Amino acid sequence: MLEAVERKINQYILTLNEPDIAAVISNIPVGKRLRARLMIEIAGSSLKVIKSAAVVEMIHAASLLHDDVIDDAYTRRGVASINSLYGNKSAIMIGDILYSKGFYELLDLDKDVAKVISKAVVELSIGERKDVQMSESFNVDEDAYRLMIYQKTAALIEAASEAAAIIAKKDRDIYKKYGRNLGVAFQMIDDILDIISDETTLGKPALNDFKEGKTTLPYIYLYNKLDIDEQKTLKSMHKKSLSKDEQKWILTKFKEYNILEESKKEAFELVNEAIELMQKANEKGLEEIAIKMVDRSF
Amino acid sequence: MLEAVERKINQYILTLNEPDIAAVISNIPVGKRLRARLMIEIAGSSLKVIKSAAVVEMIHAASLLHDDVIDDAYTRRGVASINSLYGNKSAIMIGDILYSKGFYELLDLDKDVAKVISKAVVELSIGERKDVQMSESFNVDEDAYRLMIYQKTAALIEAASEAAAIIAKKDRDIYKKYGRNLGVAFQMIDDILDIISDETTLGKPALNDFKEGKTTLPYIYLYNKLDIDEQKTLKSMHKKSLSKDEQKWILTKFKEYNILEESKKEAFELVNEAIELMQKANEKGLEEIAIKMVDRSF
Repeated sequence: MLEAVERKINQYILTLNEPDIAAVISNIPVGKRLRARLMIEIAGSSLKVIKSAAVVEMIHAASLLHDDVIDDAYTRRGVASINSLYGNKSAIMIGDILYSKGFYELLDLDKDVAKVISKAVVELSIGERKDVQMSESFNVDEDAYRLMIYQKTAALIEAASEAAAIIAKKDRDIYKKYGRNLGVAFQMIDDILDIISDETTLGKPALNDFKEGKTTLPYIYLYNKLDIDEQKTLKSMHKKSLSKDEQKWILTKFKEYNILEESKKEAFELVNEAIELMQKANEKGLEEIAIKMVDRSF
Repeated sequence: MLEAVERKINQYILTLNEPDIAAVISNIPVGKRLRARLMIEIAGSSLKVIKSAAVVEMIHAASLLHDDVIDDAYTRRGVASINSLYGNKSAIMIGDILYSKGFYELLDLDKDVAKVISKAVVELSIGERKDVQMSESFNVDEDAYRLMIYQKTAALIEAASEAAAIIAKKDRDIYKKYGRNLGVAFQMIDDILDIISDETTLGKPALNDFKEGKTTLPYIYLYNKLDIDEQKTLKSMHKKSLSKDEQKWILTKFKEYNILEESKKEAFELVNEAIELMQKANEKGLEEIAIKMVDRSF
């Protein structure tokens, strides 16, 4: 039923009556549509669900267009990002068009659904800014980091799940929790992959986050385990292009203190909690989505 | 009652619980709040009106933050723009926060009101992109230019007026037309001021629009009056830094063909139509706003 979502998105874009804008939007790399998948899995494929999922995916796409400008990212999902194809300014403007069209169509949905989704967009935009702000210095505040990835990544996944539960008249709190856990775990796994993947599998250099200034959870955990001299060494490498030896030092320390296993464990716990919720609710499909998210990654 | 709007905006921002973001937002240069003024004049100052006006002004502010990034503008209303104070990326992110918070609060308003406002934001974002696209070449299409300034500038003023009329249970079409005319005239006057004002009064160099590639209506009118050789000369000056002599040539031609008077006449006709509508509706305050808009400018 994902094709129905794609069709709805295209319909929404067509009503703008701007073939030129539609052409740019058609070049946005389409991902796995995780949010739409979750919504259909939770609430089926009635027109209401398809519309809501289309709006969520348009908003998500808009946020990625702006993210890529903010992060100076020139690839997205292994292909050229919109800012690299059309320039930063176009990416900002097309993002604004997608956001505003998404919000406009949101008004046709149930008020509860619209509120849940639009509240998440506020979180998401705050989270994106925090991500940038926090990467300016060596952040060691775990809770601040967790809150930020919740806002940046999990809030919209949580909202998609909750919104679908509202439409399906299921217990919204259970699905909200499921979406939140999945979203936070998703970002944690992404952060770990940045450390363990090499350039060819990830499409960007390993340890890229740290180079960008992002002290993701593994770096915070590592920092807390290191002695004072080692802490200084780690800090001295923050937000810099690292030599092979420096990279090796970091990777060795990660291994020495078993950091990546610990980080994975935390993500897995969140996913397991999500899976248990779905087992109780007898939601086979949602269990599988959660399992696959982890499987695909490692 | 504009203070009530300011207070409401501050309240909305405070609920974000992000003092750091609130501090940046407090540095956004505040304009004349034309949209809020119109709304209060049309519909009074009930909480509903104040909320709607606050949302419209937040969305307007967000659009200006992004505009200044797109246009590489480092001043706004004579003072430093947010992008010049905090960088382009911050301006994009703060714009997204203001947009999303505005949209979130929009959901608490009547659905008709929310639809009218959010539809205008779609127009506005399309208009901004058209403005940029059209400035890439020497545009001579009058109708395309008029549509663009309607979308970029008038749509949100039109929507503010219409939304207020809906709240006040007045004839929405009359107020919509009033807002539209005022908005289009406002942009036309702005375009003329770019030609007749000097750097000190305008805060940017005269003929700046043309240098940026924007062939506003006066340039299109002039082009249509010039002979073929002169047309070539004008085109050769497009999107360039002009010498004093070149500037003088353009200004002389504007005079020779009476272009600025013709352009003003067109703007005045729109304002007059708006004034007549308000005379019939016995709306003294709105008449005055329209008159002042022209008076202030010339």
